[in-house]
Amino acid sequence: MSLELRRRIFEQLDSLVLIDPHTHIDALNPAATTLADILGYHYYTELAHSAGMAKGQIDEPELDPREKVRRLIERMGPLDNTIQYSWFIEMCREFFGFEGDRITLDNWETLYDQAAEKMRAPDWAAQVLAKSKLEAVFLTNDFDDPLEDFDTRVYVPCLRTDDLVFHLAKPEVQARLADATGVDVTNADTLRYAVAGLFQHFKDKDAKACAISLPPDFAPQKVSDARADTAIADLYSQQQDASASQKRAAANFLFWTITEYCAEFGLPFDLMIGVNRNVYPGGVYQGMDLYDSRVSLIQYRELFNAFPQVTFPVSVLASVTNQELVSYAWIFPNVITNGHWWYSNTPAYIEHDLSARLEAVPRTKQIGYYSDMYKLEFALPKFAMYKRLLAKTLAERFVIDRGWSEEQAVLLGTQILRGNVETVFNCGPQTTDASDQ
Amino acid sequence: MSLELRRRIFEQLDSLVLIDPHTHIDALNPAATTLADILGYHYYTELAHSAGMAKGQIDEPELDPREKVRRLIERMGPLDNTIQYSWFIEMCREFFGFEGDRITLDNWETLYDQAAEKMRAPDWAAQVLAKSKLEAVFLTNDFDDPLEDFDTRVYVPCLRTDDLVFHLAKPEVQARLADATGVDVTNADTLRYAVAGLFQHFKDKDAKACAISLPPDFAPQKVSDARADTAIADLYSQQQDASASQKRAAANFLFWTITEYCAEFGLPFDLMIGVNRNVYPGGVYQGMDLYDSRVSLIQYRELFNAFPQVTFPVSVLASVTNQELVSYAWIFPNVITNGHWWYSNTPAYIEHDLSARLEAVPRTKQIGYYSDMYKLEFALPKFAMYKRLLAKTLAERFVIDRGWSEEQAVLLGTQILRGNVETVFNCGPQTTDASDQ
Amino acid sequence: MSLELRRRIFEQLDSLVLIDPHTHIDALNPAATTLADILGYHYYTELAHSAGMAKGQIDEPELDPREKVRRLIERMGPLDNTIQYSWFIEMCREFFGFEGDRITLDNWETLYDQAAEKMRAPDWAAQVLAKSKLEAVFLTNDFDDPLEDFDTRVYVPCLRTDDLVFHLAKPEVQARLADATGVDVTNADTLRYAVAGLFQHFKDKDAKACAISLPPDFAPQKVSDARADTAIADLYSQQQDASASQKRAAANFLFWTITEYCAEFGLPFDLMIGVNRNVYPGGVYQGMDLYDSRVSLIQYRELFNAFPQVTFPVSVLASVTNQELVSYAWIFPNVITNGHWWYSNTPAYIEHDLSARLEAVPRTKQIGYYSDMYKLEFALPKFAMYKRLLAKTLAERFVIDRGWSEEQAVLLGTQILRGNVETVFNCGPQTTDASDQ
Repeated sequence: MSLELRRRIFEQLDSLVLIDPHTHIDALNPAATTLADILGYHYYTELAHSAGMAKGQIDEPELDPREKVRRLIERMGPLDNTIQYSWFIEMCREFFGFEGDRITLDNWETLYDQAAEKMRAPDWAAQVLAKSKLEAVFLTNDFDDPLEDFDTRVYVPCLRTDDLVFHLAKPEVQARLADATGVDVTNADTLRYAVAGLFQHFKDKDAKACAISLPPDFAPQKVSDARADTAIADLYSQQQDASASQKRAAANFLFWTITEYCAEFGLPFDLMIGVNRNVYPGGVYQGMDLYDSRVSLIQYRELFNAFPQVTFPVSVLASVTNQELVSYAWIFPNVITNGHWWYSNTPAYIEHDLSARLEAVPRTKQIGYYSDMYKLEFALPKFAMYKRLLAKTLAERFVIDRGWSEEQAVLLGTQILRGNVETVFNCGPQTTDASDQ
Repeated sequence: MSLELRRRIFEQLDSLVLIDPHTHIDALNPAATTLADILGYHYYTELAHSAGMAKGQIDEPELDPREKVRRLIERMGPLDNTIQYSWFIEMCREFFGFEGDRITLDNWETLYDQAAEKMRAPDWAAQVLAKSKLEAVFLTNDFDDPLEDFDTRVYVPCLRTDDLVFHLAKPEVQARLADATGVDVTNADTLRYAVAGLFQHFKDKDAKACAISLPPDFAPQKVSDARADTAIADLYSQQQDASASQKRAAANFLFWTITEYCAEFGLPFDLMIGVNRNVYPGGVYQGMDLYDSRVSLIQYRELFNAFPQVTFPVSVLASVTNQELVSYAWIFPNVITNGHWWYSNTPAYIEHDLSARLEAVPRTKQIGYYSDMYKLEFALPKFAMYKRLLAKTLAERFVIDRGWSEEQAVLLGTQILRGNVETVFNCGPQTTDASDQ
Repeated sequence: MSLELRRRIFEQLDSLVLIDPHTHIDALNPAATTLADILGYHYYTELAHSAGMAKGQIDEPELDPREKVRRLIERMGPLDNTIQYSWFIEMCREFFGFEGDRITLDNWETLYDQAAEKMRAPDWAAQVLAKSKLEAVFLTNDFDDPLEDFDTRVYVPCLRTDDLVFHLAKPEVQARLADATGVDVTNADTLRYAVAGLFQHFKDKDAKACAISLPPDFAPQKVSDARADTAIADLYSQQQDASASQKRAAANFLFWTITEYCAEFGLPFDLMIGVNRNVYPGGVYQGMDLYDSRVSLIQYRELFNAFPQVTFPVSVLASVTNQELVSYAWIFPNVITNGHWWYSNTPAYIEHDLSARLEAVPRTKQIGYYSDMYKLEFALPKFAMYKRLLAKTLAERFVIDRGWSEEQAVLLGTQILRGNVETVFNCGPQTTDASDQ
């Protein structure tokens, strides 16, 4: 009975047209051109490497896409238990007509060719969006992205600020900032002015959010302009040789300044909390980052209090931080729970974390899911995984345990999946199409 | 089959008469007089505020109770997914004849009047206790509470010691202590003498426990009398201007002294570990506290070893600390698991934490639940939630997974719910009524 | 349907012949001689003590085994909810023909005699192994164990290194090292030479692993030989009076050196992370250790990067560390998830932790379970508990939630239970019996 109920709720949730509020899609190359773009995703390369495949086999320069796929398929047996592998299979079944449940050296080549054939269609990206029932996807744009030549109603710009906050000491970041803004940064005032220019540019291009990923030891603090002046001067003169203390002061100044502009420009600020970069430098591309789960949202106490007018959709990397997220979203009006990030984006953690959110955070303050994808083909299986878990949770914990009607449960799921994305990020038909009504 | 089993076990657990071992009931005003006393509970005001309701709308001085309820009902839509909302609905159905599953601007007024009518009955508190199958509730009394004019067999005094331990630097606390004890505190000896007076007073009034809530960074340590003398002198001369170090020394001295008197007077010491006060100062009344989940019971190592004769019923604020609590209760004879506190008092966390306790802590060392309520009407829905989860856990993990009989499962549940409250706190018929037998 | 499915998967998993990759078995006395050897296991004595039994009743010197069992049986009522108690009952049913579900003062004596009778059989250990479907068990050998007079194909040596790393300041450890190796340790070079001798001895005796348990605050670092020289000289001259800093430097040197020899001798290095020793000194034998769950695998970053050629099967004491373990095993090729240790070896934590591993760590990199037992009789009920949970997880999360076939699920379970033990530890028929083929 419970399985049938789950299936019915899933089907209703699966019929919704969605907006994906966080991806790494390149708006100019949103879809894959061969399966190498799919299996080249770090989720597969890092697992294959972890299971014993040499990095050099994966990262080899100028490697032919077909050969890259053959090599990876050959090494995927040890991964076929993972949920990541299941995304690949579901994608191949839904998009490329694959009918089995394992892709091996015996059947990969036909699939490769069928996929390449499909991907050659000029409207492939649109096909993928349509089949995935996606109306729009948020991007993750470098601060100096020109944001040109794409439809910002489908590919929604989002200002990513990691480089500014954590890497301003790098000469190339300083150069990119100068190029993008025309500002000669020398102190707090000029840096603030440059950041304002970035926000104006993104806002002019219909950006709907600002975003940043943060290491576990970051605890944002307001610093004075005088302190910032010193730090900025030092970063521009010493660059990477600037001391850790100066870098930290500059990071704090920039983070706080960016938040101020989020307030001024009316943009939510996505905080993705908890990642340590480059923990395994010998790993494959994008497969080097890990974390220290000893992080607390108490580190953001001053920030959340200082900016009641800024909405903070918060993602946490470790499931052990999820209860704090639930509690902070339950108390602070400006804290929103946001998706299931990276190492917590697997069924056991999603179920545990989702259950806790659904029963204690106001239903208007939960963004259910984002795909975090690099190629459009991933939204379908990732969202399908989430919708199955959402259906399971609604069936078991609301309909069965709490006596909700199926209809009420579906409405809650719908709000988490779609409605809140519109209201939190001020996007979707009721806002962008307001002039049509 | 499993649902039917759960239902049967629930019904047996639900037939028990219980003692609620931790509440914030005012013995002189134990029940609500209007629904404003119910919806004014911080669980609703903080969630409504979190979902966007202005603090001023909630906290407005001299606000008419009916208007307060109207305003809150208007803003409860975003909360109707929460377990807290379900408590409200269940209470209204059980006590006030409400029959729907949502209370809105369309139906609230009749309910308000029906509730007010019921609450006007002179024996309303007794009716609530009877319908809730509660025989007694523990209070949370200020150290200077006269403890007069109520029946201590129904409203059981409990000495709350937060003010003494953490706020002795405040002039008003010093004054209250002087008034309550008649002792002129100047040093360790006189402070110890004053505390002894408080214990004697509480013991004379049938107190059954001492309690305190503790911040995550507290790690109790014994300090010498000489060190305490200096600290106390400083707190009494400098008051709030005393240094953090002096305040910490005084807190340690007081905490240790209180524990010594728990030993001397035979009272369990409820430790409620992990809360940071006033994290969100802009929040509504009682909706400002949060926590840092990076706390460990290793901080209490010295204490648990120093006082083998004192029973410590321990509550932890974060579910991630529950495994430590399980392990410490499994090893230390004087550590007892105690209820599911505040941010961990939601179904997903209760299930996870309860399962772990039931299978690894001796059955005699678990206090299943307390309501933490401010008004008597809350015990029924809160205990009902817990009993459903307890029934589910016993059904799935003991009867189904481990082959227990239904009867054995009910006996375990009964002990957790009722029997251990009697033995741990030395209360209930077998002790207080011993002379009748 | 799900229960039937679980049962079928369990039966298939339960038919497997296994190797237990971590135990504390004494190869010269592997099985119990009376039930006192069973109930003397710290899991029972510490729980009985925690539930109120005086330490002196348990630890009394020269206590007759029958009287010891009688005393413990008398105090086991409060423990009959625990999973540990269920191991005892299952063992008594499977090995000694017991037919009830509680052992009390009314029925213990017959059981005691029946067990003693069975245990007197000269081939009792072999009978237990056969009935438990165990082909071999790994030992935990002191570094100076002669490793003589037993069959290393059944009792597989494993070099335990806690004493060397953390207790070299003790005169008796220095003496044992000198006796075992004949080396006069004076500095880094001679200590390294002594350690090499230990590895050679263990390797000659077919050791398959090196192992160590680590406190939560340990963060391995490479230290220079010069620094090590100073530290070692100090430990040998000052012994226990050596400073904490010298002891730490020596511990780091030894830990790093041992890892180097793991690389050289091709042995996996089992890391058991998170235990604080002697937290409750008043506890019973082996019932004094607890932990601080605030530990992170980021502390092992330098180690995992420095030794790509060493396999690290990692156990974590607290379930809150399991997600980090999953993530580190997902990224680092040399990190393997290893069993469910001690305070996390209870069903609720196993289920949560196992689910997360099965869906995100390559199937080749998971060691499902080890018994950690001191007497052979414990493997059967402990593995049975694990296999039931594994069957439940495979049934619910793979067959039902993900549409796997029952056969695929059983194959995954088989690999976790048996196959990976062979490949990770280079043991089992395909390696040790290679010459027969």
